[in-house]
Amino acid sequence: MSSTHHVLGIGNAIVDVLAHADDAFIERNDLNKGAMTLIDAETATALYAKMGPAVEISGGSAANTVAGVASLGGRAVFIGKVCDDQLGEVFRHDIRAVGVDFDTRPIAGSPPTARSLILVTPDSHRTMNTMLGACVELGPEDIDPAVVGGAEITYLEGYLWDKPTAKEAFLKAAAIAHDSGRRVSLTLSDPFCVDRHRDSFRTLIAGHIDILFGNEHEVMALYQVDTLEAALDRVRGECAIAAITRSEAGSLVLHDGRTEEVPAEPVAALVDSTGAGDLYAAGFLYGLTAGRAPAECGRLGSIAAAEVIGHIGARPEASLAELVATRA
Amino acid sequence: MSSTHHVLGIGNAIVDVLAHADDAFIERNDLNKGAMTLIDAETATALYAKMGPAVEISGGSAANTVAGVASLGGRAVFIGKVCDDQLGEVFRHDIRAVGVDFDTRPIAGSPPTARSLILVTPDSHRTMNTMLGACVELGPEDIDPAVVGGAEITYLEGYLWDKPTAKEAFLKAAAIAHDSGRRVSLTLSDPFCVDRHRDSFRTLIAGHIDILFGNEHEVMALYQVDTLEAALDRVRGECAIAAITRSEAGSLVLHDGRTEEVPAEPVAALVDSTGAGDLYAAGFLYGLTAGRAPAECGRLGSIAAAEVIGHIGARPEASLAELVATRA
Repeated sequence: MSSTHHVLGIGNAIVDVLAHADDAFIERNDLNKGAMTLIDAETATALYAKMGPAVEISGGSAANTVAGVASLGGRAVFIGKVCDDQLGEVFRHDIRAVGVDFDTRPIAGSPPTARSLILVTPDSHRTMNTMLGACVELGPEDIDPAVVGGAEITYLEGYLWDKPTAKEAFLKAAAIAHDSGRRVSLTLSDPFCVDRHRDSFRTLIAGHIDILFGNEHEVMALYQVDTLEAALDRVRGECAIAAITRSEAGSLVLHDGRTEEVPAEPVAALVDSTGAGDLYAAGFLYGLTAGRAPAECGRLGSIAAAEVIGHIGARPEASLAELVATRA
Repeated sequence: MSSTHHVLGIGNAIVDVLAHADDAFIERNDLNKGAMTLIDAETATALYAKMGPAVEISGGSAANTVAGVASLGGRAVFIGKVCDDQLGEVFRHDIRAVGVDFDTRPIAGSPPTARSLILVTPDSHRTMNTMLGACVELGPEDIDPAVVGGAEITYLEGYLWDKPTAKEAFLKAAAIAHDSGRRVSLTLSDPFCVDRHRDSFRTLIAGHIDILFGNEHEVMALYQVDTLEAALDRVRGECAIAAITRSEAGSLVLHDGRTEEVPAEPVAALVDSTGAGDLYAAGFLYGLTAGRAPAECGRLGSIAAAEVIGHIGARPEASLAELVATRA
């Protein structure tokens, strides 16, 4: 079946505001180290005022993933909501500049384009504090059936589940994709996101998800079990393919009753873990659309993730297609 | 004489939009490689649309310098004009976050905060295309005599000379500084900037400038001579101190009839030359206010410049005070 795009990503359209911080800063400001916390505009203003000098780089989980797919040479498209402000212009420019199609209508005036205030600690972990802004306006009317039907894989980020209209958009897209004979993929996003939406995530996964991404903490939180093995047993029954990431321990790829271990790619210098999971998904999904075997897809994910954690920011600086050509 | 600040910087308040580009891109778009070119809003929109994914980082020549002074442990203040838009907020946050005082009243509505579209080529050179936006509104009314009188050194960027009201602001500040028994410093900024304003720069330097910064190309352009030696002979008669930078060949420090050579600091990886001159000036000026001998000031300049060319962006990522403590 021919396709317009290899991967459609649907997610929050966010500009990352990245600053270095020490652990004392994280503690003093009661931040949830390593997690994504939703904050309101007032909290964002107060936290921003305390942060050190920052760098603005386009982010957003599914947006990072489709940017990675494009960098690998895939045809990608994104659906997400920005405001018609300066940060919205930055987001739109950056995602189009890597070759991703992006035509979601921006909202006018307010709320402003979403930003995530990200503190990178000396251990390279990132602590994200996200003001959703314009993202809360994403709704079913933004889902173009022709775009969904034309994409081999529709990829959804769990973070979208935090807002009712985005959730509707998410379910509409999943239904269209399946009606069109396409595959649907989900990333669990974050253990706290799983805690917020456990029951409906389980229903969604059982009914709609062909390819699941999550790290070991997220899948254990999803099924409320104490061991990774127990979580994997549950996942196996639900999804055709699951890729479970384990940081420097690499990933586990579950498919056709098998569990394959994929090592992490060596990293010269671990600088900023922001985007590691997003880029793993990029490599994996690109591999699937290129007809690679699941374990090979995991290896492409490892290569893409290793690139993005070697520098500040959650999108590739190097051409991933060139990187893969030399390594894979 | 006691002081409120060690260094006051007056300059364009700019957010840098940095993207990688190859030399073919520079040629195809008729850009002036290695230089700063002023562009209008329409040209900026067209160029931005062609650029790859970018990173937004606060910049501005004198602003980078005072950020460096603060990072070295000095008390610094900045005067420059932003708009009350999102990029203006970014600029204000970043400069205050490093400890620089910044209270210039922003303009409301438009023109927007200035941005410089900077292409970094594989040789690490930067090609800057600046839309001045709100900066054109800087005027003499923004110069607070108490701030100028309280600063040991008032540092001015040559780029300000491109707009009549900024030039007035510049001359007002220089006059107040001298009336207060303070020193005035100028950076020539760019050979093209020197070409645009040669005569008035010469008059200014002869009448007002105690400490001059420029690279070899800029001082040769200033006096329209063919050799660096001839240019240095002219500079010696004009300024008490001059620091002439020569990229990887280090710098020459002229003072009290002497010329001292200062080597460049070794750089592990040359990534992006944006801000090298600005941070050299930061180290030098900080050294002067700390009572260091001129050649030692040049060495502090080399250390600060080496830090900033080791990463993307024109402001220090590391604490320069700590860096100097280990090296100087």
